[in-house]
Amino acid sequence: MEVGPLLAVPPGERYKLVQSFLDKYREMTLEALLSYVPEREPRKYLYDLVSDYPVRGGKGFRPSLCLASCAAFGGDPLDALRSAVSLELFHNAFLVHDDVEDGSEDRRGRPTMHAQFGIPIAVNVGDAMNVLSIRPLMDNLKHLGERLAWQVFTEIEHMVRESVEGQAMELGWVHENVIDLQPQDYLRMILKKTCWYTCIHPVRIGAIIGSDGEIDPDEFNRFGYYMGASFQIQDDILNLYGEHKRYGKEIGGDIWEGKRTLILIHALNTCTPRQRERMRRFLSQPRVERSADDVRWVYRVFQECGSLEYSRSVARYLAGAALQEFADSFSGAKETPEKRFLEQIILYMIERDL
Amino acid sequence: MEVGPLLAVPPGERYKLVQSFLDKYREMTLEALLSYVPEREPRKYLYDLVSDYPVRGGKGFRPSLCLASCAAFGGDPLDALRSAVSLELFHNAFLVHDDVEDGSEDRRGRPTMHAQFGIPIAVNVGDAMNVLSIRPLMDNLKHLGERLAWQVFTEIEHMVRESVEGQAMELGWVHENVIDLQPQDYLRMILKKTCWYTCIHPVRIGAIIGSDGEIDPDEFNRFGYYMGASFQIQDDILNLYGEHKRYGKEIGGDIWEGKRTLILIHALNTCTPRQRERMRRFLSQPRVERSADDVRWVYRVFQECGSLEYSRSVARYLAGAALQEFADSFSGAKETPEKRFLEQIILYMIERDL
Repeated sequence: MEVGPLLAVPPGERYKLVQSFLDKYREMTLEALLSYVPEREPRKYLYDLVSDYPVRGGKGFRPSLCLASCAAFGGDPLDALRSAVSLELFHNAFLVHDDVEDGSEDRRGRPTMHAQFGIPIAVNVGDAMNVLSIRPLMDNLKHLGERLAWQVFTEIEHMVRESVEGQAMELGWVHENVIDLQPQDYLRMILKKTCWYTCIHPVRIGAIIGSDGEIDPDEFNRFGYYMGASFQIQDDILNLYGEHKRYGKEIGGDIWEGKRTLILIHALNTCTPRQRERMRRFLSQPRVERSADDVRWVYRVFQECGSLEYSRSVARYLAGAALQEFADSFSGAKETPEKRFLEQIILYMIERDL
Repeated sequence: MEVGPLLAVPPGERYKLVQSFLDKYREMTLEALLSYVPEREPRKYLYDLVSDYPVRGGKGFRPSLCLASCAAFGGDPLDALRSAVSLELFHNAFLVHDDVEDGSEDRRGRPTMHAQFGIPIAVNVGDAMNVLSIRPLMDNLKHLGERLAWQVFTEIEHMVRESVEGQAMELGWVHENVIDLQPQDYLRMILKKTCWYTCIHPVRIGAIIGSDGEIDPDEFNRFGYYMGASFQIQDDILNLYGEHKRYGKEIGGDIWEGKRTLILIHALNTCTPRQRERMRRFLSQPRVERSADDVRWVYRVFQECGSLEYSRSVARYLAGAALQEFADSFSGAKETPEKRFLEQIILYMIERDL
């Protein structure tokens, strides 16, 4: 019996391997994405802004998962490139609207779109990015044929629905100032809001195209869920404890926004009744009325409660489960560098500091 | 030679004819639309709100144009019903986001979605409505076959792109406080923002399905443009001079929002230099800083300049041109009640008071 990949690759080596694939796939996708942005008017408040978030340089997780999964199942990554472009455009559209919805200030080291151009223009640019994400899927028709093109289309449609459902859950909690939440509620929310579009569907789509529709995409659901959940928890941790310059978002922004992170939920369930009541009052205020002193106080409660350590542990359990699921769901894939990349990115996601 | 339909039908008769078709088509579409709204969680801040604007009862112009055009070219309106649902869902999604973008207060006689639930939830509900508008188009596949289903899909994709482009033009004017505008600029903007999705594509899609793809849909572009433009100008007029209860939006809302309507553009080009300078200052303020006194003053300038009469005239020229184009572009359609409805709705649109 093999001991598995957990300790087989040291973090430094993993970092190099994963980073080189991410760089390659991100560049491929960005180049193709930009070719889908119309070169015509209206530029200033529409098409120039459509490429704004993508060229700021995200990590490229989603297209990379898609392209590598295609290769791992025997396909040419170029066959999945249009779908990867659609994923990346949708992701960036989601970010633009998400930043409006959360009142976020920074994104990838610069002011959010609505902070620069106002909510009206940001909402419309997000709508434009959503419709532009359709065109590459239509182009799949002539490259992949009707059957695969429609299958990918169905995947994307489901993906977007899950994302808006997850977003609605989270916004509902903030709107009603819900504080009686358990870790399971959080996991259900991020399964919808994050996992489907960040991991599950990118891998499903890549595997569908790579295997020419032979593979059952449901095989990847648990893998993608575990991976996406550990990714999101690490994101929440970085939001609190990361370096602003590297992470590119406002540090502590989630506290300012009253986001129901696993860290917050743990603290609410662990702190004293007095602290919980003060937290409730803090969370009931509109963002603009929250003070820096109160944000620091919440941060101290997190520390007292050990909520960071708790969340780190959960992220690691989930990553371990993802590794285990990976072994099963990718057992049919040949041992290629792309498969190795997909395995190694699981731990990379919770070791990353940006 | 026939004298044509201009004076052949008195307004009262036209009203009854058009209204009965609108009622029938609107009900068919709403029923089908509601069957596409998932009956599951999250309800309160998502799926319950998805049907909010549609059940408030719009006029149903867009689905009616689509279904009647399908029938006029020999098809069964039921074959176009899914496409009509998609048009109506998209239209309502656009309204939800448009209300956010314009800071509008009322819609169909009730507070706008963001006025009731806040901008974050309204933006997300609009996103959900956009993705839900995809499903009926996917269902076209099994009912209409691959060729027609893709063709309709391409129509919708173009329609949404034109709409966000038109929206970007209008938002850019407000954002930069542009006042050097001519009627042609306004017409170019509403061609994109209103005409494609309100008239041109509904008719094109109906005719494509009705003729089983035999008809060249470009034949309807000018007709739909003229009709849509006269519709939009009438909408701008009703916004200023309508009765609140019947019209369902805030009267004078366009002035509060600083919208570049044909009326405003005419007034800016007609008023005295002093009035123009005061208008410029008024328009440079954020909505919340505008006073009711100033809004009344703008309204009086409109009256002094004869901007209402001017806009009414332009709407009539456009309606006349639409009637003329209708005769050409529908010459191949049999003389059916549906064709008669389509002809009569042109003048109905500028005679309406809601």
